[in-house]
Amino acid sequence: MSAPAAAMDAPTVADIDAAAERIAGHAVYTPLLENAALNARSGGRILLKPETLQRTGSFKFRGACNFIGQLDAETRKRGVIAYSSGNHAQGVAAAAALLGAPATIVMPADAPAIKIANTRGYGATVVTYDRWRDDREAIAGALARDSGAVLVPPYDHPWTIAGQGTAGLEIADQCAALGVAPDAVLVCCGGGGLTAGIGMAIGARASGTAVHPVEPAGFDDTARSLAAGKRVANNPTARSICDALLAPIPGELTFALNRQHAAPGLAVTDDSVRAAMRYAWQVLKLVVEPGGAVALAAVLSRALATEGRTIVVVLSGGNVDPAVYCDIVGAIAPA
Amino acid sequence: MSAPAAAMDAPTVADIDAAAERIAGHAVYTPLLENAALNARSGGRILLKPETLQRTGSFKFRGACNFIGQLDAETRKRGVIAYSSGNHAQGVAAAAALLGAPATIVMPADAPAIKIANTRGYGATVVTYDRWRDDREAIAGALARDSGAVLVPPYDHPWTIAGQGTAGLEIADQCAALGVAPDAVLVCCGGGGLTAGIGMAIGARASGTAVHPVEPAGFDDTARSLAAGKRVANNPTARSICDALLAPIPGELTFALNRQHAAPGLAVTDDSVRAAMRYAWQVLKLVVEPGGAVALAAVLSRALATEGRTIVVVLSGGNVDPAVYCDIVGAIAPA
Repeated sequence: MSAPAAAMDAPTVADIDAAAERIAGHAVYTPLLENAALNARSGGRILLKPETLQRTGSFKFRGACNFIGQLDAETRKRGVIAYSSGNHAQGVAAAAALLGAPATIVMPADAPAIKIANTRGYGATVVTYDRWRDDREAIAGALARDSGAVLVPPYDHPWTIAGQGTAGLEIADQCAALGVAPDAVLVCCGGGGLTAGIGMAIGARASGTAVHPVEPAGFDDTARSLAAGKRVANNPTARSICDALLAPIPGELTFALNRQHAAPGLAVTDDSVRAAMRYAWQVLKLVVEPGGAVALAAVLSRALATEGRTIVVVLSGGNVDPAVYCDIVGAIAPA
Repeated sequence: MSAPAAAMDAPTVADIDAAAERIAGHAVYTPLLENAALNARSGGRILLKPETLQRTGSFKFRGACNFIGQLDAETRKRGVIAYSSGNHAQGVAAAAALLGAPATIVMPADAPAIKIANTRGYGATVVTYDRWRDDREAIAGALARDSGAVLVPPYDHPWTIAGQGTAGLEIADQCAALGVAPDAVLVCCGGGGLTAGIGMAIGARASGTAVHPVEPAGFDDTARSLAAGKRVANNPTARSICDALLAPIPGELTFALNRQHAAPGLAVTDDSVRAAMRYAWQVLKLVVEPGGAVALAAVLSRALATEGRTIVVVLSGGNVDPAVYCDIVGAIAPA
């Protein structure tokens, strides 16, 4: 990684506070939503943090904006590089354009076409690779060496994690404004950066609240790593519709942080994810992508107890191909 | 109409304030959203009021809750009746259930199946009729006479209008909190109740702001009536995908109010509505029904000037059949 080496220490809550100041005016302070039908169905009080409404349609803009915002003008001019299944790509592309850095994004050739198109739309150069055969880190690393550009890590970097943690600060402040102390926050988890950032922020501001990472079945590396006390990888033959959450193993830094702050992990099936996307469409009127719906799926499928409890559910992103979306949502029986 | 006759005077802003207190705790105080891509596209600042996130998925809950909330316990017990293409039906059904009144809803047989199913889901009895042949007011009136139930008018009643006006109070307060004086508020318009309520609230709180009703082409009776200075009807052969906005002629009371408070009306084609629904899905990540997308369609199709202006756009509802929705959204080119 060509990310500045001096910054590789774990971030602090002060870093998250600084990130919040740095990204203010660029990032959306997303609302905290509540739906009476969802409360009734769960028997609890469910508060939704829709990062689908974030700039670029996912939380990834927070980390990218915080990271690039910390590069000096000279470094920005050399450009930034990222590898991503899509949401990080869009976040980096948009943040780079705003902050004056040319961006090159290394994306899997089978990423949702809308994510590739949007990334190009933000002005970035896109280089594609084979998700199951090529080493995206090696490709991105070589590009960085050749150009002098800085790699923006998708999750395993303190600047990225601090940026994602700003969502946790907002959740804590929004809950406090409602006079609510949530029992749990459910976070969609791939490499673990959002979980780590939110875990730190909630740990500092609402220490009685559990922060559960939620993963697709077969990609529950964070849950199993937390249980094992060490990083364990997913079976490389695993597949899931949650394209945003297919990291092979927890990050080193994210895992170290999640061991301190995260409660046991939860896993949900692709079918429960599809049901959650349909529910979000039909009842919540929110567009949520598969990976962004895992935390909602955990609530709807009762992967944890909800009765009488107050639970914050992060909807982490909404970027999905229309054909994929309509295959899922079009399957709602009309009456 | 069996609505209490003494209440047929025009509502005042004090009535809207009272409505806001009456529905607080039942209705959602919907957020005011902003999207950088939409701002960039319009060249202005667009603030979105998503009543899609309102209880029952449309603003209609506000008016229904305010109306039923003013009935005494004895009257509520006899029940309420409504005729509606769908959103008012759901609003009345849900408000009636919350406030302890049995509800009977008269709905067109070709209303979106999801709206009929949801109305039944809230516990109401549904009676269907032929939209193009039967007289829904007569059917509802006969049911009311037979049962002693109170008809909840969809728009042409001061209690209904005052309830819808609470959305306008929220817009005014939210804009003030942002330090913004909007140039215009664009309101999706069928019978004119939402426009009348918002027009009154904005007129009282933000008098420099224009309030434009937006209608589907062929159903621009409010625009033409405002221009003519008297109520004129739509051509009965007109058709539109905006099932929520097919009122034949402006209400008497709503028109009288809109003459005082509303700026010239705008009309948009069904194609521009489809484009707005796609944009809402792809960029805003919000599910919007055809009738709920007309104000956004006006902005996207440049039916009014947006460059350098601040414009509030009401997204009035999100209840649409999945097949209809996917016919529209599935038509997005993937790359």
